[in-house]
Amino acid sequence: MERYVVRNIDRPPQELCAELGRLGVATVYEAQGQTGLMDDRMRPIQQDASVCGPAVTVICPAGDNLMLHAAVECCQPGDVVVITTEGESNKHGMMGDLLVQSLLARGVRAVIMDAGVRDTARLREMGFPVWTTSVACTGTTKSKAGWVNAPAVCAGVIVEAGDLIVADDDGVVVVKRQDASKALEASLAREKKEEGTRAKIAAGQLGVDFYGFREVLAKLGVKYYDDEKGRRASLPGEGK
Amino acid sequence: MERYVVRNIDRPPQELCAELGRLGVATVYEAQGQTGLMDDRMRPIQQDASVCGPAVTVICPAGDNLMLHAAVECCQPGDVVVITTEGESNKHGMMGDLLVQSLLARGVRAVIMDAGVRDTARLREMGFPVWTTSVACTGTTKSKAGWVNAPAVCAGVIVEAGDLIVADDDGVVVVKRQDASKALEASLAREKKEEGTRAKIAAGQLGVDFYGFREVLAKLGVKYYDDEKGRRASLPGEGK
Amino acid sequence: MERYVVRNIDRPPQELCAELGRLGVATVYEAQGQTGLMDDRMRPIQQDASVCGPAVTVICPAGDNLMLHAAVECCQPGDVVVITTEGESNKHGMMGDLLVQSLLARGVRAVIMDAGVRDTARLREMGFPVWTTSVACTGTTKSKAGWVNAPAVCAGVIVEAGDLIVADDDGVVVVKRQDASKALEASLAREKKEEGTRAKIAAGQLGVDFYGFREVLAKLGVKYYDDEKGRRASLPGEGK
Amino acid sequence: MERYVVRNIDRPPQELCAELGRLGVATVYEAQGQTGLMDDRMRPIQQDASVCGPAVTVICPAGDNLMLHAAVECCQPGDVVVITTEGESNKHGMMGDLLVQSLLARGVRAVIMDAGVRDTARLREMGFPVWTTSVACTGTTKSKAGWVNAPAVCAGVIVEAGDLIVADDDGVVVVKRQDASKALEASLAREKKEEGTRAKIAAGQLGVDFYGFREVLAKLGVKYYDDEKGRRASLPGEGK
Amino acid sequence: MERYVVRNIDRPPQELCAELGRLGVATVYEAQGQTGLMDDRMRPIQQDASVCGPAVTVICPAGDNLMLHAAVECCQPGDVVVITTEGESNKHGMMGDLLVQSLLARGVRAVIMDAGVRDTARLREMGFPVWTTSVACTGTTKSKAGWVNAPAVCAGVIVEAGDLIVADDDGVVVVKRQDASKALEASLAREKKEEGTRAKIAAGQLGVDFYGFREVLAKLGVKYYDDEKGRRASLPGEGK
Amino acid sequence: MERYVVRNIDRPPQELCAELGRLGVATVYEAQGQTGLMDDRMRPIQQDASVCGPAVTVICPAGDNLMLHAAVECCQPGDVVVITTEGESNKHGMMGDLLVQSLLARGVRAVIMDAGVRDTARLREMGFPVWTTSVACTGTTKSKAGWVNAPAVCAGVIVEAGDLIVADDDGVVVVKRQDASKALEASLAREKKEEGTRAKIAAGQLGVDFYGFREVLAKLGVKYYDDEKGRRASLPGEGK
Repeated sequence: MERYVVRNIDRPPQELCAELGRLGVATVYEAQGQTGLMDDRMRPIQQDASVCGPAVTVICPAGDNLMLHAAVECCQPGDVVVITTEGESNKHGMMGDLLVQSLLARGVRAVIMDAGVRDTARLREMGFPVWTTSVACTGTTKSKAGWVNAPAVCAGVIVEAGDLIVADDDGVVVVKRQDASKALEASLAREKKEEGTRAKIAAGQLGVDFYGFREVLAKLGVKYYDDEKGRRASLPGEGK
Repeated sequence: MERYVVRNIDRPPQELCAELGRLGVATVYEAQGQTGLMDDRMRPIQQDASVCGPAVTVICPAGDNLMLHAAVECCQPGDVVVITTEGESNKHGMMGDLLVQSLLARGVRAVIMDAGVRDTARLREMGFPVWTTSVACTGTTKSKAGWVNAPAVCAGVIVEAGDLIVADDDGVVVVKRQDASKALEASLAREKKEEGTRAKIAAGQLGVDFYGFREVLAKLGVKYYDDEKGRRASLPGEGK
Repeated sequence: MERYVVRNIDRPPQELCAELGRLGVATVYEAQGQTGLMDDRMRPIQQDASVCGPAVTVICPAGDNLMLHAAVECCQPGDVVVITTEGESNKHGMMGDLLVQSLLARGVRAVIMDAGVRDTARLREMGFPVWTTSVACTGTTKSKAGWVNAPAVCAGVIVEAGDLIVADDDGVVVVKRQDASKALEASLAREKKEEGTRAKIAAGQLGVDFYGFREVLAKLGVKYYDDEKGRRASLPGEGK
Repeated sequence: MERYVVRNIDRPPQELCAELGRLGVATVYEAQGQTGLMDDRMRPIQQDASVCGPAVTVICPAGDNLMLHAAVECCQPGDVVVITTEGESNKHGMMGDLLVQSLLARGVRAVIMDAGVRDTARLREMGFPVWTTSVACTGTTKSKAGWVNAPAVCAGVIVEAGDLIVADDDGVVVVKRQDASKALEASLAREKKEEGTRAKIAAGQLGVDFYGFREVLAKLGVKYYDDEKGRRASLPGEGK
Repeated sequence: MERYVVRNIDRPPQELCAELGRLGVATVYEAQGQTGLMDDRMRPIQQDASVCGPAVTVICPAGDNLMLHAAVECCQPGDVVVITTEGESNKHGMMGDLLVQSLLARGVRAVIMDAGVRDTARLREMGFPVWTTSVACTGTTKSKAGWVNAPAVCAGVIVEAGDLIVADDDGVVVVKRQDASKALEASLAREKKEEGTRAKIAAGQLGVDFYGFREVLAKLGVKYYDDEKGRRASLPGEGK
Repeated sequence: MERYVVRNIDRPPQELCAELGRLGVATVYEAQGQTGLMDDRMRPIQQDASVCGPAVTVICPAGDNLMLHAAVECCQPGDVVVITTEGESNKHGMMGDLLVQSLLARGVRAVIMDAGVRDTARLREMGFPVWTTSVACTGTTKSKAGWVNAPAVCAGVIVEAGDLIVADDDGVVVVKRQDASKALEASLAREKKEEGTRAKIAAGQLGVDFYGFREVLAKLGVKYYDDEKGRRASLPGEGK
């Protein structure tokens, strides 16, 4: 199989990224039909960061980060670098502060990696957000071929170059480039609906009422008792 | 099996909760005979929070949070909602910020959930403490029957409605409602004893002395050597 | 097998500790030939702490912390206590704030433990750094013999009394006492080289150039394409 | 909290056990409304065994098996001993071949344990089936009080003395004693229905037809294409 | 996003499957450049089975197996059904013996599933091989749309309809349809080379000699000592 | 740090190995004071094998098995090769059937490895027993220096060349060479005592009697009730 680097990728408009980033993972994931969510092994190394940008994908052989060096020059301001490996590399420190300095120099916004990261204290200090499956130090080689901007599998989801990556404390969701506008539209609709819900809650209404769940509960045969004594009294013999 | 909601529960006095919350998980767990501790998969999403309150229990079918909506109106100020599922739901976002807004409107103090939570950044912002077994986003249905205020198993411990839940950074411990006064008494006794110990340590005493461990060590035949050279010299041949 | 306590140990000079602590885990681990790194289950309970000191080792039987009490008087200012158990104790709270108060009274700098810790909120408040494999509360006994300052296995690495422990957010690395000066020298050399690299990156150079990776990539046969269209055009049939 | 032993328990009729055992875990679990299933950490140490019997429950403190010794005389032929601990004991060998010899002498049919077991090769040789959460050897003490025939939590499910335990290669399900007849009835109905389905499949029919799933798929808007070329042709621009 | 079923797929010649199946996972994976290997969470439910066939892919929403029913009629003799879910389903019994009976009626050779399976004892009895990430019973719904024969991610690897799946006790490897002949060729070459190696070993030769590793070891500076005494004698002071 | 190979090691007498192997892991581990037990991640790839032999230790850098090739010529009939890595290698296939063929040619009895193994079906066929922490295929390099017959940490235990390794279905235990005779003696004593116990059980006696546990239970205040009704009657109010 040919290993390669694709230097330039199509990127979606910046405003679209800004909006999706503001809406956040849970909303976008739900709005696009509950698809694209990375496995929850993917956790942030910082708290309360939230980003969105087009993916530059990097596939390294397990324990070798040569391709990550090759990827740097393919990045542009606002990009999110998505790193994954052929074979697991959660015990390797596939990226540290030097590589992040290089990525920052290119304007990269964040890294999502299904592999280990090191120098996390320093990265937080630099204000560079990372979502990762592990913190690890084991050294890597820099001598094996892989791919930059090929379709990659990261934490269970296919990512293609230019797909949008939305990441926050809830995790990471992938929006296919061609579905981005539709996803934004649906997310905004969902946000609007949630605002309506929020207003109802603020006004003291109960979800069980305004969602119509009372009928659902009734149809399912859920019984209501005033208290435990009442419930026990309803039992044939004397119950448990 | 009948699925049901019990609307009202017996709650222990508020002062009792305040005191147990102040004493904390480790003390209460030890004081009540090393029982009631939830599995350590149960972790807080925030740091340094500490709560105590009576349990409102919710049992949902895996991946469905209808019953959580049904539980809201059963809550009163100071309650701690304990959520668990029939079958594991650690990959589902069983509760998000909208539901928490509803719970806050009822004065709920915290949620303990053997299931996934989402919107964690937002929940921290709202100052609402949650202990959970996972952070996850996968969507849920809202169409299956379960139980509110039935006996539930949460992270390995049986919780009945009205039992006291004590939670802090060490984890979560359950105090049976009928044992609450006794648990408080024992916890206060333990606290007092620990204060004595603290004073001794502050005065430069060693636990190995004031606990009487020197005799235990002697009885167990633990040998003391001044240094490694001395130890090696004591070996028959030349030893390892 | 004899169980024993060795009261005094050889300690490396304090300046050496200060320097290695400043250099950090990743640098020291790499500089000493990628050895001595503890398993990544070993995580800090606080953020951004960084320490280095000579190891006082404690081996307890699983679920019993008597030997930890015996170890206190063997400690001196600047020491790092390394706790491990015969059989796993990740579900036990092997150390809490009382023991830490005792260790602080002796000037101990940090604890590294392949076992559970409790009272973590309190320990952070006290400013006492701990690296651990779990947070847990299950009670311990105080009645079984073990070892103080015997060779111990902690998170996969052999630690002997007086070895240097370097710990930060990346994890924990062990430097053999006899290799400490050499490790420091190599770490300083590595730091210097990294400074050079940092300067190049700051000046806008690319690692792929100054590391000479372009030739490596060429030798490995990695192909470059300007964009995805170009790559597809190069495929024999039309391929995926 | 009082620790106790209840010597005698109510047991369901043997025929009921035989029938439920024959029907198996998956059928019974589904038939009783998808409840009572233990966590899938609970695995058999042998292949192809299948049992059902009334539970004798044992709750031990973590790492101590005194109560298991106390439980032996409470057992009768056909019983299934359910062992769990306060605090996790997956690293302890809580039961070995000597204890099993004692249980066999009482006619016990199987053991279900949320704790470690040892001597597994010997137990298979003895033909004694065990479902367990781990194989482990770490030694136990025999000096702490617990409970025999108190309500216990085993692998996430509440088990009361006399509840029916059904176990096979799929896992373990608990049938509440009071619900046993109803569960059997529902399981037999389910079995009958499955036989009908089996006959249809054997006759070459497709589930998508006889379950009526074609309409469901249509209603959900699932599109059918003859082949990938056809699907691509249907895309607006040129698709992915 | 459109959900769909592609009824017919391109399949590679049967002889190619037979040959790759005989060569096995380790050989094929190595021969195709160490790519395509599924995560090692993917384990067989039986011992010593070995298969190869073209993939029919099924993507279900988590906990819903409607699409698996839809997939049955798309299968042909010799196919390997690859099942995965949007969101994790390792706790669900996504397939049982009824579905397998349907697949067997279509001549399906095996199932590879990144999801839970049930009725494993029965499936072994039927002689139907399954590789899975878990054994689980939790019930599924049959009401949600997904995909048949769309590109799927299974245990970390992209699988497209018609790709070849090779599975044995070592795990599962995916061979891209377009690379199948080349992979076979490389695998046969590797097999031949291994036979040569086997002959050398049988003739009493050492790999360290015939692979030329003695020079590698020398270049790396690995020192040889006749025994431990010799090694210690070589140390400057007195060594460790 | 110097990397090296020690060619010859001291081995304990064969009879000692035979006896310890017959006694098995649980007995030897208990007899030598509950020490030396490897972590229970270490599992056999076959059922019902049981071995004992002197350790030849191999430490490889993570993901590189050059040193394993170097170790072959250091082996003698009856040896047990213990493989571990600097940094985790559970995702790598560090040994396959070719290496095993080489080891078999030297008369090696078994391999214990804290790393991944491949070709497991073939190894079972060859009758070669392996205990391992994982089955994995990811390829390895053969270019990095390590150690043969240096002190190694395997699954949490220190192993020195010539130490005795006892392995069976319960796991793996290490007996220090210098403690081997004492360990055998203690194991035989334990075996004898167990035979006495077995005879008592066969004669219908209860452990709770012949171990003297009735008094322990009485001293601990464990209450006995004839049945649940009796227990409830004893409660002050009406209890739970």
